[in-house]
Amino acid sequence: MQMVCLPRLSRVAVCGGTHGNELSGVYLVRELLKVKKGVMEKEEEQEEEEPLSVLKVLSNPRAMQQCRRYVDTDLNRCFTHATLNGLTSGTVPYEMIRSRELNAMLGPKGRSGAVDLVCDLHNTTANMGLCLIAYSDCDWICLHIFRHLQRKMPDIPMRYIHFEVSNKESYSLDSVGKHGFAMEIGPQPHGVARSTVYTAMKAGVQHMLDWVCFFNSGTLFEGESVDVFTMIKHIDYPRDSETRNITAAVHPHLQDRDFCPLHPEDPLFQTFSGETLRYKGNEPLYPFFINECAYYEKGIALSLARKRRVVIPTIRVQTEQEQAAHVQELASEEEE
Amino acid sequence: MQMVCLPRLSRVAVCGGTHGNELSGVYLVRELLKVKKGVMEKEEEQEEEEPLSVLKVLSNPRAMQQCRRYVDTDLNRCFTHATLNGLTSGTVPYEMIRSRELNAMLGPKGRSGAVDLVCDLHNTTANMGLCLIAYSDCDWICLHIFRHLQRKMPDIPMRYIHFEVSNKESYSLDSVGKHGFAMEIGPQPHGVARSTVYTAMKAGVQHMLDWVCFFNSGTLFEGESVDVFTMIKHIDYPRDSETRNITAAVHPHLQDRDFCPLHPEDPLFQTFSGETLRYKGNEPLYPFFINECAYYEKGIALSLARKRRVVIPTIRVQTEQEQAAHVQELASEEEE
Repeated sequence: MQMVCLPRLSRVAVCGGTHGNELSGVYLVRELLKVKKGVMEKEEEQEEEEPLSVLKVLSNPRAMQQCRRYVDTDLNRCFTHATLNGLTSGTVPYEMIRSRELNAMLGPKGRSGAVDLVCDLHNTTANMGLCLIAYSDCDWICLHIFRHLQRKMPDIPMRYIHFEVSNKESYSLDSVGKHGFAMEIGPQPHGVARSTVYTAMKAGVQHMLDWVCFFNSGTLFEGESVDVFTMIKHIDYPRDSETRNITAAVHPHLQDRDFCPLHPEDPLFQTFSGETLRYKGNEPLYPFFINECAYYEKGIALSLARKRRVVIPTIRVQTEQEQAAHVQELASEEEE
Repeated sequence: MQMVCLPRLSRVAVCGGTHGNELSGVYLVRELLKVKKGVMEKEEEQEEEEPLSVLKVLSNPRAMQQCRRYVDTDLNRCFTHATLNGLTSGTVPYEMIRSRELNAMLGPKGRSGAVDLVCDLHNTTANMGLCLIAYSDCDWICLHIFRHLQRKMPDIPMRYIHFEVSNKESYSLDSVGKHGFAMEIGPQPHGVARSTVYTAMKAGVQHMLDWVCFFNSGTLFEGESVDVFTMIKHIDYPRDSETRNITAAVHPHLQDRDFCPLHPEDPLFQTFSGETLRYKGNEPLYPFFINECAYYEKGIALSLARKRRVVIPTIRVQTEQEQAAHVQELASEEEE
């Protein structure tokens, strides 16, 4: 199997409060901001190595203050190239302004000045365990971090979700980094902090930072294969054609069964008058984000994924010479 | 054991959406409004009896529309005598206006024109099962309804919670009726409808209405004893003295253990840095509303109750003669 040599990860951003009512990330980043030189950054004390810079960011302070997902519009949909770079006129939504501030701080998206890795912390009301959500199924950094977390946290169900969207159209904060993913943990009601969920997220972030340090210090990570869930489509709730109010809830047999295969004719919804509605697809798929609170307004009752095995290569950090050559390469690319 | 004869319950109100993001009640009342003459009101078809009038009320339409607890202020704290009857000036919060509309519709609170029974539907993020919450531990109607529901729904943990507050100071919508209680079901994240929770609430409301019909038609309900949880005090989260941000979550050993006795020195909170904080009370009490989302802003991490056995008498509806005498009595009381 080939070995891939990748650039050093010098700057990592850990972001919380991108959605102001997803509290694990809010409290974790606040805690990290308190700990100047603590457990999370022991690598800085090792003088022989270049320090890892960890930026801790509270992404949407106004939404956090109101304990709401957002104030004007969903911040985590504001990081497309179009939204970041388009002209604005009239009253600009707060989150659009904030997305540009964050892009200036952590980006610019798609450019060599961007941070190397963004880990954006989220919660869901769905029973999803810990998921890494990314736009790529061939970002070896994200996939190796995922495998590291799986090994280090064997008691927590863990999946890698892939949204197949181009870099220009990718819309979330984690797309601003050279590498990036959302770390999504549930179930937890929005506006609530559950201690076990907080502790899992804290461990996940710690193991992610550990991995980056191992990688930077030259550790070789063996290739292997990984299950990846690629998002195929969303399913909306049944709705009243006039009022658009929902007329059914997720069926009790499906509720909390995220990542268990959904087969044609399996129960999908139970209407408020008691009727069962069934899945009419023609292939079994894997449901996730089942009954996520924030997606009622987006018209998503659940998402469906196809599961694939992805072979990831052995990787190690580039040597200094390789790095220098790589930087030159990037610079000439940007000039074009 | 004595027998108590009580007036007929002619008008019952079933209210949902008092908190706009507690969705079981919102969808259940919407469903009941669709069913003009259905399962819920079969008694109307029995011509030999006086029909039971069931008012179905969506209490806070603006909050429902925004899927928030409230728009300006918590509607379910606006039904004190002072708030309902005080002078208003300047910009009046929407919910204060709405509470007066509801008082005109279902009350006036404390007067003979009020509906006989208010059942106000709520959800909680706490693991409380189904609770009836009332201001009295000697309202035989509420307590007999509670026992009826317990018997009819043996699979659902069910408790009766008593908030010891005078009628004048009682603040919630259910206090507007001659009898009243909140039917609180959890756990369910606010802004989410879980099918099992919806179904439990629907069954609870149906059994409540059935009981009222049995009562009105002369059924005698035997006296017995009932466990009542009387609220003693609230406990807030540990908070940062400067920012007032919370610095700990409910301890994993306590989370979801509503109504399990909490003993002195039992774990209460786990700080975000990992420390365990213990319960320093000097008697075992019963925690409830553990980690309820809406109470973060009220400074309540959990409430504590004392459990008591209450003996409830045998009851039946008054005969027509008794009722006539009772009405006269009430009228002369109101003239005073």
